[in-house]
Amino acid sequence: MGDIRLPSAELELRVPFHDVDAMGVVWHGNYFRYLEQARCELLRQIDYDYLQMEASGYLWPVVDTRLKFIAPLRFDQLIRVCVSVSEYENRLRLEYQILDAESGVRACKGYTIQVAVAKVSGEMQWLSPPILLQRLGVSA
Amino acid sequence: MGDIRLPSAELELRVPFHDVDAMGVVWHGNYFRYLEQARCELLRQIDYDYLQMEASGYLWPVVDTRLKFIAPLRFDQLIRVCVSVSEYENRLRLEYQILDAESGVRACKGYTIQVAVAKVSGEMQWLSPPILLQRLGVSA
Amino acid sequence: MGDIRLPSAELELRVPFHDVDAMGVVWHGNYFRYLEQARCELLRQIDYDYLQMEASGYLWPVVDTRLKFIAPLRFDQLIRVCVSVSEYENRLRLEYQILDAESGVRACKGYTIQVAVAKVSGEMQWLSPPILLQRLGVSA
Amino acid sequence: MGDIRLPSAELELRVPFHDVDAMGVVWHGNYFRYLEQARCELLRQIDYDYLQMEASGYLWPVVDTRLKFIAPLRFDQLIRVCVSVSEYENRLRLEYQILDAESGVRACKGYTIQVAVAKVSGEMQWLSPPILLQRLGVSA
Repeated sequence: MGDIRLPSAELELRVPFHDVDAMGVVWHGNYFRYLEQARCELLRQIDYDYLQMEASGYLWPVVDTRLKFIAPLRFDQLIRVCVSVSEYENRLRLEYQILDAESGVRACKGYTIQVAVAKVSGEMQWLSPPILLQRLGVSA
Repeated sequence: MGDIRLPSAELELRVPFHDVDAMGVVWHGNYFRYLEQARCELLRQIDYDYLQMEASGYLWPVVDTRLKFIAPLRFDQLIRVCVSVSEYENRLRLEYQILDAESGVRACKGYTIQVAVAKVSGEMQWLSPPILLQRLGVSA
Repeated sequence: MGDIRLPSAELELRVPFHDVDAMGVVWHGNYFRYLEQARCELLRQIDYDYLQMEASGYLWPVVDTRLKFIAPLRFDQLIRVCVSVSEYENRLRLEYQILDAESGVRACKGYTIQVAVAKVSGEMQWLSPPILLQRLGVSA
Repeated sequence: MGDIRLPSAELELRVPFHDVDAMGVVWHGNYFRYLEQARCELLRQIDYDYLQMEASGYLWPVVDTRLKFIAPLRFDQLIRVCVSVSEYENRLRLEYQILDAESGVRACKGYTIQVAVAKVSGEMQWLSPPILLQRLGVSA
């Protein structure tokens, strides 16, 4: 039990000019784009990306997110976005960190929580559908 | 014939902080949001907004756009976005201007061109469907 | 003491097309734009908007935010964004709700936390500068 | 003379979910982000990126842009953004194409025009400053 390794992923990207605000730092709302790109990378690796989610009969909207901004990000900065699964039984909780790619200094940390919603009925699922557990390699 | 008045609309809005870049001016790609808000206002006035377009069996993707930037826009500036119809027979061409709301000084001008695409077949229409002409009050 | 009324503000806006994603609902990261517009409205009302903040010698970056998504927002929906001050002594904490403007049904709730940073030295302030308390009408 | 090869660059990227609209295709205003990323790549290659521009005493705002949308872009599509210099004497004109990375099918084409503005005086330059020509390898 204790040795389950939940999936994680990393993504490097360079901060684009259009994400930076008049203070010369990335506007806080734009961080969610970086988180999504890392999240999609992780989901691609476990073969359960957005299109596969939909094909499996479920949508997985984000229902809760928190983000703490520790150090500013600047134009052209090379960053590493790290994401890992921390909960999956009833909902999919992912933890994120954004680091400066060179120094490793942490710029922000946070999470997103997604729940499965049946595509046809629109019903929220109180237990994660078996396909998620299977894709995570934690099938009961 | 000579006295057809094609529809036009105006929208006032205040430049939000998150649209301004590190140079302290609105990033050029963000202007297209202002154009769209004015376009939707015009379409609402003629009873042919995006939802009504879809209900009528047509999508109207933007296929061409040009925008000339004359004076910068700044955070918190009150602007007036003006839009008017300039072509409709084969495609919908809208002309735009953005003015400083107080001085009337022009900040940019440009156009968008949209064509009708049948929703079911995906076929591009070489003549604008009759519903557009009817909504514009120019039915043949 | 018990009768301090901290400032609050409201803003009505219509969900623009470009904020809606392929699922037909506003993409979660775009909510932060609506929060900012309401936040700026509140700050304008107390005479301490972003430009006045900077003129007072302080920047107020967002250092923490949480947002819970309760009901989806759709294109063209008229929404009301409500914001109120809940903490100010050491940092500025604002609480937000987004409601459907007609039904009053709540679509999301959350907060942002901002701290004062001295513009010249770049030093974070552990106590909110007196000007904030004065603007809030809670001067010691 | 006839054999001057003006710089060009390419960038591959995957269409992120948050750029796609309710019609399931990239919203037209979001293309300008892709163009900017390719433009920055080209400028980096010639050692005259945005930060170097500013350090050289000039800002280079976009003053004109046109974009024709030929085929839609979809979520997760791998695209190639191509950019090349087509004018430099009085202004910097760049030509763009976006292709599907696998099939090579063209999705859009367009241009941006930037002019040099002296940072200190704010004066627009009617001739491109010598540093641009030098960086392009076309010094008189």
